[in-house]
Amino acid sequence: MEQRLSVVTLGVRDVPRARAFYEALGWQPKSTDENMACYNLIGMAIALYPRDELAEDAQVPPEGGGFSGVTLAYCVRTKQDVAPVLKAARAAGGRIVKQAQDVSWGGHSEYFADPDRHLWEVAWNPHSPLGDTGVFQWGGA
Amino acid sequence: MEQRLSVVTLGVRDVPRARAFYEALGWQPKSTDENMACYNLIGMAIALYPRDELAEDAQVPPEGGGFSGVTLAYCVRTKQDVAPVLKAARAAGGRIVKQAQDVSWGGHSEYFADPDRHLWEVAWNPHSPLGDTGVFQWGGA
Repeated sequence: MEQRLSVVTLGVRDVPRARAFYEALGWQPKSTDENMACYNLIGMAIALYPRDELAEDAQVPPEGGGFSGVTLAYCVRTKQDVAPVLKAARAAGGRIVKQAQDVSWGGHSEYFADPDRHLWEVAWNPHSPLGDTGVFQWGGA
Repeated sequence: MEQRLSVVTLGVRDVPRARAFYEALGWQPKSTDENMACYNLIGMAIALYPRDELAEDAQVPPEGGGFSGVTLAYCVRTKQDVAPVLKAARAAGGRIVKQAQDVSWGGHSEYFADPDRHLWEVAWNPHSPLGDTGVFQWGGA
């Protein structure tokens, strides 16, 4: 298995509601219909898909709740870039989960939840500077 | 918010067990200690981190179970490349969730679960051919 990830699919209760959230944050879908939306990112994609149908596709029971055990991190270029993303997420209808703060590993981060409670960390990581391209490498280039 | 994702963190019950699984699949960590492992992928990274500590970092209750509402997809270059990944995942200690089969959107896919039940879809998607680089774009380049 090569070291890559092609798509993260987020199961959602209401695709138009989830789309409205990500598009209010400035994302442009590559394709969409009433039942799905897909965003091309760097070398991969994020898809929004009905939660029950996603479980059905994987042939697992759809029941589940609480902490998903998965977080998505969006890294920014400077410490000062963290707080404005939280503000944008709140304006788009997201829920603030953790206010921006310095963290033990030397960075600065915050968390918000999208309308389906998928957790996003917004982080400035001084150990992995993010170039103009937005490409992230753990430990830097 | 720019259109990118820097890190997917998978909360796990036992970091060495989770590492052993991904490394048996051929992944090489960029950095690791007994409490964490991180793999650089294309323009992003996947981290393994203790599930309870991940919840604590996000300041959310750690309880949760059932379907997480998130799936990770690994796309391959040909239909014939799907089944061998399932075989490798089983050999590494993964659980087969859905056998390889043709699917309604014209592709061919299967699902396995890692030791912490994170769901991976292995898919051949004829609408998004994967070049030598492994870069994925929804709808193709």
